Amino acid sequence: MNNTYKNGVFMEDYVEKQTKEVDVWKLKKYACKVKPIDIYTGKNIIVLNQDEAKEHDIYSGYRTTVTIDGRHMIALVDVSRDLVKPGEVGVFLDMMEAFKLRKGQIVSVIHMNRPESITYIKKKLDKGTLNNHEVKMIVDDIMQNRLSEGEIAAWISAAYINGFSDDEVISLAQATVESGDQLNLGKNPILDKHCIGGVAGNRTTMLVVPIIAAAGLYIPKTSSRSITSASGTADTMEVLADVTLGMEELRDIVKKAKGAIVWGGGMKLAPVDDKLIKIRHPLSLDPEGMLLASILGKKKSVGAKYVIIDIPVGRGVKVPYIERGNQLAKHFIKVGSMLGMKVEALITDGSEPVGYGIGPVLECVDVLDVLQGKGPEDLRHKSLLMTGKLLELCGKVRKDAGYDAARKLIDSGKAMAKFRQIIELQGGNPKIKQSDLEIGKYTHIVRSELNGSIFHIDNKVMAKIARIAGAPRDKGAGIKIEKFRGDRIEKGDALFTIYAESEAKLDYALKALKDLEPIELRKMLLGTMR
Amino acid sequence: MNNTYKNGVFMEDYVEKQTKEVDVWKLKKYACKVKPIDIYTGKNIIVLNQDEAKEHDIYSGYRTTVTIDGRHMIALVDVSRDLVKPGEVGVFLDMMEAFKLRKGQIVSVIHMNRPESITYIKKKLDKGTLNNHEVKMIVDDIMQNRLSEGEIAAWISAAYINGFSDDEVISLAQATVESGDQLNLGKNPILDKHCIGGVAGNRTTMLVVPIIAAAGLYIPKTSSRSITSASGTADTMEVLADVTLGMEELRDIVKKAKGAIVWGGGMKLAPVDDKLIKIRHPLSLDPEGMLLASILGKKKSVGAKYVIIDIPVGRGVKVPYIERGNQLAKHFIKVGSMLGMKVEALITDGSEPVGYGIGPVLECVDVLDVLQGKGPEDLRHKSLLMTGKLLELCGKVRKDAGYDAARKLIDSGKAMAKFRQIIELQGGNPKIKQSDLEIGKYTHIVRSELNGSIFHIDNKVMAKIARIAGAPRDKGAGIKIEKFRGDRIEKGDALFTIYAESEAKLDYALKALKDLEPIELRKMLLGTMR
Repeated sequence: MNNTYKNGVFMEDYVEKQTKEVDVWKLKKYACKVKPIDIYTGKNIIVLNQDEAKEHDIYSGYRTTVTIDGRHMIALVDVSRDLVKPGEVGVFLDMMEAFKLRKGQIVSVIHMNRPESITYIKKKLDKGTLNNHEVKMIVDDIMQNRLSEGEIAAWISAAYINGFSDDEVISLAQATVESGDQLNLGKNPILDKHCIGGVAGNRTTMLVVPIIAAAGLYIPKTSSRSITSASGTADTMEVLADVTLGMEELRDIVKKAKGAIVWGGGMKLAPVDDKLIKIRHPLSLDPEGMLLASILGKKKSVGAKYVIIDIPVGRGVKVPYIERGNQLAKHFIKVGSMLGMKVEALITDGSEPVGYGIGPVLECVDVLDVLQGKGPEDLRHKSLLMTGKLLELCGKVRKDAGYDAARKLIDSGKAMAKFRQIIELQGGNPKIKQSDLEIGKYTHIVRSELNGSIFHIDNKVMAKIARIAGAPRDKGAGIKIEKFRGDRIEKGDALFTIYAESEAKLDYALKALKDLEPIELRKMLLGTMR
Repeated sequence: MNNTYKNGVFMEDYVEKQTKEVDVWKLKKYACKVKPIDIYTGKNIIVLNQDEAKEHDIYSGYRTTVTIDGRHMIALVDVSRDLVKPGEVGVFLDMMEAFKLRKGQIVSVIHMNRPESITYIKKKLDKGTLNNHEVKMIVDDIMQNRLSEGEIAAWISAAYINGFSDDEVISLAQATVESGDQLNLGKNPILDKHCIGGVAGNRTTMLVVPIIAAAGLYIPKTSSRSITSASGTADTMEVLADVTLGMEELRDIVKKAKGAIVWGGGMKLAPVDDKLIKIRHPLSLDPEGMLLASILGKKKSVGAKYVIIDIPVGRGVKVPYIERGNQLAKHFIKVGSMLGMKVEALITDGSEPVGYGIGPVLECVDVLDVLQGKGPEDLRHKSLLMTGKLLELCGKVRKDAGYDAARKLIDSGKAMAKFRQIIELQGGNPKIKQSDLEIGKYTHIVRSELNGSIFHIDNKVMAKIARIAGAPRDKGAGIKIEKFRGDRIEKGDALFTIYAESEAKLDYALKALKDLEPIELRKMLLGTMR
């Protein structure tokens, strides 16, 4: 008991547990007519007439349940003096669309009781461990919009500070899977890969998928779009094909080609995760337990049995030290196994960008080059390594034979052919050539002002410049790296080229460049003291 | 360093510290015409045309700075397809009023950078201790609406779990004071009192203030309205006088009468606190450091030098055990002294309601009775105790002479006269009599179904019934307690009476009563085992 109020004075829930919730609000519901309001808010919000709402003890910011034909929606309340008349309920467009409401429909609105899961969020804040039911209730209430942004943020913060037990991670992963649709491909085995991110230009997925599929194995890959990077795999694949596909389409394509590369956000796969990330992202708040549940939950949703996790380590990426990478790797393997998946984690060098191109089109050029036996050696090598490990993990080839097996699938042109099949099935042009791709026509070559050798190329800064130049929205915008770590350079040598689709954006990027240091030369003297 | 990512994997800010923020957005601002939108949201929100916003890389949920005549406002973005045309910016009424905007004015809108204080919130999540500047930045960013509800909730959660150092509490208290206006009465000494709450009917403020003022000392009391209780002091005082006064009016009244009882929410006193409470309340999340800073910051804002803190302890209130009460008391004294205030904390018995009445009008009857030498003994005794301690604390009377001095001010009628003067200055009727007060005319007497003696009267349950009956919005609604702890009762005896202003609300209260247990009789046998 003592633990419950060690850090807080007011322990309302200590008392509330003794006091039954009274559903008098149920008696107070009122009916009103839907009036669409032409605004997107990203949330479920209704607008009530101020005076009428007051009559029903409902005020701005309250949570309500809106009911029509037995369907219940949870919505927050705004109030209006005049736009919404008594007897009407204003409904913002997000909610009109999500619940397929029509103007003039009659709905009933009632004040909502305190959601049950708030008690469990409080328990986690008080260093408690949640059981399966409690985690599931929180996820359910998030999915039903019963919890506010602040309440969800409190749970995330508590998870970040107090951590999750393995069982809590499993509960969350399972609830994450159940929160959405599942692929149910009906084929075996299903392979998958995931990279925890942070490395610019790191487009291994677009090579691993065609090689694995060319090897005759299933790999229904869902990828993300960029949040802060210059391009996500979905953004890059979108240059070549349609990535916004539904679950049915993904299933059909994978049944035919064995592989696909689509945008995960296009389907209802682990949707609770999207809601959590929206709140976690601005704070860069990624509790390890939530990260594991999120990634492995999504793999579970597509039915994956064998999974490779790429953990880039190094200066400027998310995991700066190898010890931390190892620790994270162990967790992935353990939780994966508890969820019935065989996981191999690869700790990779993430200290500089992979490939030449950063930005959707420029990355596509690298990918097509590698599939044709050309292109950046680091991207080719890393992709073969990962594919090889995946082939070994699922038992397709014997230990140490994976890399060579993967290489042969590239060198024989089979992976390229497979990639063209996938592009075609996803609605793209299977005959696409590098020269068809439109790189931004406004360019600027950044040259060295000194002699020396390159010590560090910063992933984050490169991504930032590429974004300011327009990536990923302008597909042809980005950066092409000309010199790499260790390269000897002379004054005037080209270091990298910036591409943009408009002069204004190229200009922004050049202005930004003045304050940034994307490339660091080696310095012998690091400091002096006397 | 290791500590920073012990619990989290993604440490974006580890990297971001090395990367300078680039103000390219500054180049991208656009001008548009204000179009008022008749909705209250409780937040600063603007609505942009969807297509135009996209042109400027602004999406739903983004934070922007809106500038007009050199004034800057921070606002969140919603988007609209048609309601807001290109070249327009929709502005919700809250923001129209707060910033005195007019239809058709031209403002400029720019995307806002990540607020500096997010780094400090992260530091607190990572168990760091914030310095004065860092706490001040967080408070500033909350006041300027630069932080989202989720970001603020993360800070509150981190404060709850990781705690605050004394210096952090001081920093927060000072920033709280600076976030709003200050009374600057120009008189000395100023006295104050505060109760951390939870006890139904506990209207000591309305007795302490007139007695202290009658003793010739200054006590400019700001009180709150009810959130979950049946009535706040401001709700009850409102029965007799106007409590929604501005800072100027409070100053004038206190200069004349030495005392006043007004609603704190009516002036800009420590406004950051209101923003924090809005998020803390649904989660009942009251980190001790924030509680101390909030209460003492408000006292500091009115210039208080001597302060009595009432800490009710017992079953069914916020502090269940005396040890916790003592610990909290020590903190109040220490932090108060660091802020230049002399604080005495009283640990009081909060295990059952004080006085007969619960609800605004019913409590007023008790207060007027006590001031006329009648009424509930417990309310009189507790008020005399508190007033006495306050008179001793400021040196007005010698040790142990306070209680008697206070009693004389009641018995002589001086406190009553002073209260009438305060009521008059606050715009009420100074000749008010108990019989003028309108108690709810729909009543129900709850009678005992058993013989026995009363073991416990529950504050929370009583407050809940009174609220369902209409309190505090219906001033005459509430409960009058007829029997108290220890009282011997027979079957059929009146336990308490419920008052309501409408039949429907009395009916709700009676329905709710079926599921609640407001009064517990003494049981000899608590359990058996064999």
